Amino acid sequence: MSTPRPDFGPAAHAELALLLEVAGTPKPGNVDRTHDFADLRFEQFLAGAVGGRPGLDAAADPDGPGVGRSFERAVAGMSQQAGGNTQFGCLLLLIPLVRTATTGMLSRDRVERVVESTTVDDARAFFMAFDHVKVAVGDPPEGLDALDARRGADAGEAAAARGLTLFDVCLLSVPGDGNAAELVRGCPRAFRAADRMLADDGPAPDRVARTFLRLLGDRPDTLVRTEHGATVAREVRNRAAACADLDDAGRLAADLRERSVNPGTTADLTAAATFVALERGLPV
Amino acid sequence: MSTPRPDFGPAAHAELALLLEVAGTPKPGNVDRTHDFADLRFEQFLAGAVGGRPGLDAAADPDGPGVGRSFERAVAGMSQQAGGNTQFGCLLLLIPLVRTATTGMLSRDRVERVVESTTVDDARAFFMAFDHVKVAVGDPPEGLDALDARRGADAGEAAAARGLTLFDVCLLSVPGDGNAAELVRGCPRAFRAADRMLADDGPAPDRVARTFLRLLGDRPDTLVRTEHGATVAREVRNRAAACADLDDAGRLAADLRERSVNPGTTADLTAAATFVALERGLPV
Repeated sequence: MSTPRPDFGPAAHAELALLLEVAGTPKPGNVDRTHDFADLRFEQFLAGAVGGRPGLDAAADPDGPGVGRSFERAVAGMSQQAGGNTQFGCLLLLIPLVRTATTGMLSRDRVERVVESTTVDDARAFFMAFDHVKVAVGDPPEGLDALDARRGADAGEAAAARGLTLFDVCLLSVPGDGNAAELVRGCPRAFRAADRMLADDGPAPDRVARTFLRLLGDRPDTLVRTEHGATVAREVRNRAAACADLDDAGRLAADLRERSVNPGTTADLTAAATFVALERGLPV
Repeated sequence: MSTPRPDFGPAAHAELALLLEVAGTPKPGNVDRTHDFADLRFEQFLAGAVGGRPGLDAAADPDGPGVGRSFERAVAGMSQQAGGNTQFGCLLLLIPLVRTATTGMLSRDRVERVVESTTVDDARAFFMAFDHVKVAVGDPPEGLDALDARRGADAGEAAAARGLTLFDVCLLSVPGDGNAAELVRGCPRAFRAADRMLADDGPAPDRVARTFLRLLGDRPDTLVRTEHGATVAREVRNRAAACADLDDAGRLAADLRERSVNPGTTADLTAAATFVALERGLPV
């Protein structure tokens, strides 16, 4: 049932990855096709994906504005719905992946080089993206209050004054931020998860849900750690690892939902893995 | 909870309309957020919407190729998923609506004029779109076998030899085709439904589902008539009209699903109404 997708360039695949990510169910603790939160709803993720497209297109344009400004544009568009932050972290991973796929082979090595070659301007634009939408982030490293991402463009100027590139900013964020850790290492978890997604079978949203569950059972989610502490993050990891199938995941979903525990970083990784899998022929 | 969407031009709103249409549930007889068919699945509508985007962008480009070629391009991209025809009829309504919104005010009069001003080339490209995907259509009018849309590009050449514009082709199709009837009249049902959708309240997908139900109860669906005959089409209309709310619609959905009765033309009208509502500020 595989259908070639010659008209789907990297930007289209990235948008479709955002849509498939939210279509996969159950994804314990997250909004999905059959779960809304009171103030964050499925259709706001649909609008977030459509709104992010111009930024994804910019990342896929060889003559475009580069990773940082493409990301800032994607976040600006994503934010034009009433739910707030739907896919900030997804876009943070997807933009460099799209850039990599646009400029050559989509491999870990090349993602690493794309992220390493980011500039001071990319870092400045990255911080500007925080002015578009409220994002849950951990405290900045000791002595680096000026770089607190919640300061948005001001933090961008502080980073520029220090000559920091987006790669440097990611390195500084690694301890508390799973997405930064992924980016500086060429997205190893996303690539591994994509391989397993391609080796899996069944409809794409089911593969997405199983990918999410495996990633959640693999390592503590850093958004859960930021919002609920390390103990809860480990508990969620262990319980996900103990799920044998999506039925078990459904029971975990009900519990996390009740406790407002939202493993958002794992959703980001799932979207990134889905993008890599789509680029490599995941059937839809 | 309304959020401005300055970055959502007509093409983005049209893509979002396609996504919201399939996110509305229950939509009796159709694929939606909680209903797949064995051979036609929710995620294939997501991919169809993303794949249709380049054609929608072409329609939104003042220097673009015009209605017919934009439609053909949208259908080509929509077809790059394994489910077959997901949104052919939706795109047939959306492309002229996007063109109208791009070139001035989005009003019934102006839609009518956009459709009236289509050319022989638009008609030729319209028929070419049928070569990308299998579409259920009624038999052509008596003596017009050469214009049977199922012949694709060959029918396009036959239409061109007769000097027919896309408007002429729509006029010929009016008796059996609800979308053609809508197009030659400036989409009156879509505009009326959009007004009611804007006056409604609640989340966008619920408004979409109620719009679908009202349209289905308003007039017999022409795809149901083509596939199951006039008696079934009237029965479905009457039963939809008797539904007091979405719970009733859920019961009708279970029955239509079992009988494989698919009111596809009503889904097309719903997508068109959703587009008009989004252009006029429907909150998401």
